Amino acid sequence: MMTALDSPPLNLVLDDIVRSHRPQSEAGSVPASIPHLSSPAFNRFGIAVATTSGDVFSSGDADLPFSIQSISKVFTLAMALSAGEPSALWSRVLREPSGTSFNSLVQLEVEHGIPRNPFINSGALVVTDHLMEKSADAAGHVLRFLADQVGGPGPFIDEMAAKSELANSSRNLALAHFLKDFGNLHRPAQAVVENYVRQCSIMMTCVETAKAGLFLAQGGRGAQGTVVSPSEAKRIGSIMLTCGMYDAAGEFAYRVGLPGKSGVGGGILVIVPGECSICVWSPRLDSKGNSLAGSAALADLSDRTGWSVF
Amino acid sequence: MMTALDSPPLNLVLDDIVRSHRPQSEAGSVPASIPHLSSPAFNRFGIAVATTSGDVFSSGDADLPFSIQSISKVFTLAMALSAGEPSALWSRVLREPSGTSFNSLVQLEVEHGIPRNPFINSGALVVTDHLMEKSADAAGHVLRFLADQVGGPGPFIDEMAAKSELANSSRNLALAHFLKDFGNLHRPAQAVVENYVRQCSIMMTCVETAKAGLFLAQGGRGAQGTVVSPSEAKRIGSIMLTCGMYDAAGEFAYRVGLPGKSGVGGGILVIVPGECSICVWSPRLDSKGNSLAGSAALADLSDRTGWSVF
Amino acid sequence: MMTALDSPPLNLVLDDIVRSHRPQSEAGSVPASIPHLSSPAFNRFGIAVATTSGDVFSSGDADLPFSIQSISKVFTLAMALSAGEPSALWSRVLREPSGTSFNSLVQLEVEHGIPRNPFINSGALVVTDHLMEKSADAAGHVLRFLADQVGGPGPFIDEMAAKSELANSSRNLALAHFLKDFGNLHRPAQAVVENYVRQCSIMMTCVETAKAGLFLAQGGRGAQGTVVSPSEAKRIGSIMLTCGMYDAAGEFAYRVGLPGKSGVGGGILVIVPGECSICVWSPRLDSKGNSLAGSAALADLSDRTGWSVF
Amino acid sequence: MMTALDSPPLNLVLDDIVRSHRPQSEAGSVPASIPHLSSPAFNRFGIAVATTSGDVFSSGDADLPFSIQSISKVFTLAMALSAGEPSALWSRVLREPSGTSFNSLVQLEVEHGIPRNPFINSGALVVTDHLMEKSADAAGHVLRFLADQVGGPGPFIDEMAAKSELANSSRNLALAHFLKDFGNLHRPAQAVVENYVRQCSIMMTCVETAKAGLFLAQGGRGAQGTVVSPSEAKRIGSIMLTCGMYDAAGEFAYRVGLPGKSGVGGGILVIVPGECSICVWSPRLDSKGNSLAGSAALADLSDRTGWSVF
Repeated sequence: MMTALDSPPLNLVLDDIVRSHRPQSEAGSVPASIPHLSSPAFNRFGIAVATTSGDVFSSGDADLPFSIQSISKVFTLAMALSAGEPSALWSRVLREPSGTSFNSLVQLEVEHGIPRNPFINSGALVVTDHLMEKSADAAGHVLRFLADQVGGPGPFIDEMAAKSELANSSRNLALAHFLKDFGNLHRPAQAVVENYVRQCSIMMTCVETAKAGLFLAQGGRGAQGTVVSPSEAKRIGSIMLTCGMYDAAGEFAYRVGLPGKSGVGGGILVIVPGECSICVWSPRLDSKGNSLAGSAALADLSDRTGWSVF
Repeated sequence: MMTALDSPPLNLVLDDIVRSHRPQSEAGSVPASIPHLSSPAFNRFGIAVATTSGDVFSSGDADLPFSIQSISKVFTLAMALSAGEPSALWSRVLREPSGTSFNSLVQLEVEHGIPRNPFINSGALVVTDHLMEKSADAAGHVLRFLADQVGGPGPFIDEMAAKSELANSSRNLALAHFLKDFGNLHRPAQAVVENYVRQCSIMMTCVETAKAGLFLAQGGRGAQGTVVSPSEAKRIGSIMLTCGMYDAAGEFAYRVGLPGKSGVGGGILVIVPGECSICVWSPRLDSKGNSLAGSAALADLSDRTGWSVF
Repeated sequence: MMTALDSPPLNLVLDDIVRSHRPQSEAGSVPASIPHLSSPAFNRFGIAVATTSGDVFSSGDADLPFSIQSISKVFTLAMALSAGEPSALWSRVLREPSGTSFNSLVQLEVEHGIPRNPFINSGALVVTDHLMEKSADAAGHVLRFLADQVGGPGPFIDEMAAKSELANSSRNLALAHFLKDFGNLHRPAQAVVENYVRQCSIMMTCVETAKAGLFLAQGGRGAQGTVVSPSEAKRIGSIMLTCGMYDAAGEFAYRVGLPGKSGVGGGILVIVPGECSICVWSPRLDSKGNSLAGSAALADLSDRTGWSVF
Repeated sequence: MMTALDSPPLNLVLDDIVRSHRPQSEAGSVPASIPHLSSPAFNRFGIAVATTSGDVFSSGDADLPFSIQSISKVFTLAMALSAGEPSALWSRVLREPSGTSFNSLVQLEVEHGIPRNPFINSGALVVTDHLMEKSADAAGHVLRFLADQVGGPGPFIDEMAAKSELANSSRNLALAHFLKDFGNLHRPAQAVVENYVRQCSIMMTCVETAKAGLFLAQGGRGAQGTVVSPSEAKRIGSIMLTCGMYDAAGEFAYRVGLPGKSGVGGGILVIVPGECSICVWSPRLDSKGNSLAGSAALADLSDRTGWSVF
C-alpha cells in the first residue's frame, strides 16, 4: 500500500537513486533490431517524478530526450479509447497477459487474429488502426496530446529514426498483413505500420514522460481535462501491471509492485495510483528487453518509499 | 486506491450484495471433470470479510463448507515458502502469467519443465513436492495451518471426494510424470498427486476462508504469528493478481482490481492489502472456470467500497 | 510394385473411372478464400494419363482448362532447381512433412524462418524467390516451360483471377514479410507474392497437366531434354509423396500409394515412376483441401492398375 | 523403380558396404536417456538382406543381437492389426507424419488425444493398448511372432534392460496418463508402458530382423502364412515411408527412397516391396536419432542396386 514518504525528501532520494544506479559498465544489451538505438552511451541515467499535487522532481539525465518506443503504446491506447467507441476497440483486442515466450504471431494464430493485449505489437497495431479511424495521422495526434500534457513543444518525432525503423519492419508488416487476413485491420497494413513506427520514434525526456503519464495517476484527468474515464484509467493501469513489462510482468509486479510500461529505448513509465507518475531511463537492457538499471532503480525506489499496490 | 468506506456499514453492504447476486437460475456451468462437484444447488451464495482490525462480516451461505479446490494453492504456496529454502522453490517455478489457452503441458514442454507460476496445476505440483520435503503429509500440514488460522477444527478434507478426484487424475498424473522427466519432481508422482488432490478437497466456509487468507492482507502475519515474510506476502499477492484467475486474470484485474484466487468449487479469495481478506462462494462457473456470481459480486463490492489497487 | 496392366485397355478404364466418379451432387466444398474458384460446376470431372512410351489417354472433361493452383509448386520447384545452385535453395527450405494442423506461420517461427518443405506456402514463396534471382518474371518462366512440355500455347495465366487472388493475399504477404524478417527472402515481399499468385493462376487442362508432369516419371527428362537431374527428379517425387497432399499425405500414400500434388482448384497430379503421369480434376474438395472425386478416382485407378510404389 | 541387380552379386556388395561404412571413430551420439545403450562399441556394423525368393545375405556383425527399440513398433502394429478390429485401431491413431520438432505431447494436446501415427511414442502406446485387449502379455505375443518368423528361439527380451528403461520412463508414463485423460487408453497406464518397454527391449540380430520384416515385402505373407492383408501391408509400408525415421522421414525418402523404421539401438529395417527386407545396424546416431553409419550405408546400397520406390 502507499505510505506517505516521511524522510528524506524525494529530491534527495532521487539523487541517491542516480548515484546508486547509474551504470558503471556496459553490462546489458541494446536492441540490435533498431539501428539508431544500437550505440547509446551506456552510462546515461535519468529519473523524474510528477506528483498529483503538481510537483516535479528529477535527477540525473532527466532532461535528455530519448526514444520512448513501446511506452508510446500507453499513450496511443489512451488516445484510441478517447477517440470513441471503446467497446468496439475492446472487441478487437483482449486484456490478458501474453505470458509466453511464444511470439505474438503464434498467439494471433491460435486466437484467430485477436491480440492478447494492447501492449504486444499486434495489439498495438490494432489500437493504432482504431485511432486512425478518427485521425488518419495517428502519430501526429498522439504527439499533440503529449505536447498538451507537458505544456510545451518538447516531444518530437525523430523522423530519421522512424525511417530507419520502417526499413526494418518486416515483422510488424507480417503482423499487420496477418491481422488483415483475420479481418482485424481496417486501414492498409503499410499505413498502420508507418503510424506505429512514428509513435515509437517519439523523443521525450524523463521529465516530459512523467508529466505525460500523470493522468493515469489522477483517474484519467490530464493537464487539460479528462483524457479517459476513471474506469478506463483503472483498466489501463491493470493492463500495465499484468502486461507492461514484456515477459517479466510477474517479476516486475513482485519487485516493484506498480503498473509500468517499458520500451526498448531504455525508458520505463510507472504509475503510483493517486500519488505520482515516474519515468526512469537508462539505455542498456536486460534479457527480457527492460532497462537493466531502470528496473533496479524502481525496485529500490519502491523499497525506499513504500510505493506499491500490494 | 483504498478509500475508507464511509457509509453504509459493511454488514449492510454484504447483505445487499447477497440480495443482488444470489443466482436466480442455473446459468453457468459446473466442473464436469470433478464428479462430486457436478450437482451443487445453483442458488448457493455466501460472502465473508475478515478485516485487519479483527472484525468478521458475512452474509448469505457464509457458514456452509465448500470445496476450496484451487484456492488451496495459495495456502500450499505459503506453507512451502515457510517450510524453508524459498529460493530453491523459486528456481523450480516461475512467477509469470501463463496467459494462453495452451494447456500447461505445452508450456512445460516449451519451458523445459519449469512451470510458469505456482497456480497452474504443474506449478502447484512442484510446490507440493517442495512442501513434502519438509512434511511428507503435505495436505495434513496445510490443514493444520488452516485450523490454526480460523481458530478451530472447522476445515476438513472430504476424503470421499478426494478419492473420487484421484480416480480422475490422469491429467495431473501426466503432468507429474512429465515434471519428473524434466527432473523437476523429487517425490514419487503418485504421492505428489495424492497430496495435491487432498489439498484441493479441503472443505471450508466463506468465513473460515476469509480468516485463513487474512495473513496476506497483514504483510504475512497470521493468527499465530508470522506465516511468511512481508516480502513473500507481497510476492504472493502479485502472483494472485497476475495469475490467480486462470485465463481471466487481466479481466479480473480490471473489473475488481484486487489480488484474487478462484477455485472450480465456486470460491474466490480476494485480498485488500492492509485492509481485509474477502471470500465469496457460489458454485456455478463462467467459461473461464471462475464463479459467475462470485466475480460479479466482487466487481460490485469493489465499486461500492472503492477497494482496488489501481 | 507396378504390374503391367493386362486388361482392359487404359482408355476403357479411364472411361469407367469417369462414369463411376463424376460427382452426382454438390458434396464437398470450394475454397472460400479464392473468389473466382467459388462457383464451379460441381459435376466437372476429367482425367488424363501421359505415358513414358509417348501415349496420352484421357476421358471426361480432360480438355477443359482449370486453375492449377498449388500444382504449380511442382513446376516452380523444378524451374528453381534447374535455374542453378540447388544446394543454395535446399539450405533455405527443408524437405520434411509439415504434418500438423498448425499453420505454417507457427512452424516458420519455431524453425526460425526455414519452411518445412517447398509445398507449403512459405516454402513456395522461398522457391519463387530463388527462381526470381535468375528470372525476375518467374511466373512467365514457368509458363514458357509448361508450353514447351505440352507442345503448344495452351497454358495461360488467368490474369483477372490472379488480380482477384492478389487482393486477397494478406496471409501470403504476412508469410513473405515474416520470411524477410528472418532473412529468408531476397526480393521484395510484394513482388514475390505477385509471382506466386500468378503461378497459381495458370490454367491448364488435364491432358496438358499430365504432359507437363511427365518429366518426373522419366527421371527428369522432359519433352525438350533434361529438366532436372535424375537425383532431383527422385527428390521431387519423394517430396510429393510425403508432402504433396496437405495434411492428408499419409492417407493418400496409403490409399493411392503414389507421389501426388493437389491444388484447391480441384486438380491432382500423380506420378507413376517409370510409367506415366496422371492428372485428374474435379472442383469440389474434401475437408483437407484435396479434390473429393479426384482422390477417390485415383484410389480406384491404383486398385485397378496395380500402380503403387508400395 | 527397382531394377534387377546385375553385378556384382549381393553378397559382395554387402561386404563392400561393410568395408566402406563400418565406423572408424566415435562420431555420432548414443541415447543418453537409455542407460544400457549408452556405451556400445562404436565400430559395430552389420547388414542383412532377406529376399522374397528365400535367400538371406549378410555381412559384418549381422549375427550380434542388438536392442531393436522402435523397430518393434512395426511388429507391434502388425500384431495389433492382425489381432482384429483394425478399423477400431485406426479410429484411435492417425496415419499422418508428425513432421515437427514439437514433441508428441504438444501434438496430442492439439489433436485431442489422437496420436498422429503409430510410430511416435504416444501412437505406439495406443497400438500396444489395442493389442493388449486380445493378449494382455503383448510383449510376449510380439516375441512369439518374431520367433515364428525367424524360425527359432533367437529373439529374446533383455529383461534387465527393460527394467532399467522402465525406471526411466517418466515421459512415456506422462504420455500414457495423458492418453487416458483423453479416453484413448483402455488398460492401466503402468501396464501399457511396461509392455511397450519390454517390446522395445527385444534383442535380435540383423539376420533375424531382416527375416522378421520379410512379410512386409511379400504383401503381408510371413513365414507361417498371412500376417496382415496385402492392403494393411501396403498401409504399414506407406506409414514407414512417411513416418518411420523420426523427423528425417523426408530426407530418408529422398536419399534412400524406401520405407524404413529406425530405432535408437542403431538398427534400421527397410522394405523393398516385392524384393526383400533389409536390416542394418550400427549403434552411433545422428542428430535425428537414426543410425549414422546405417543411414549412409542404406543410401549407398540404394544407389548400387537401384532399389527405390521413386
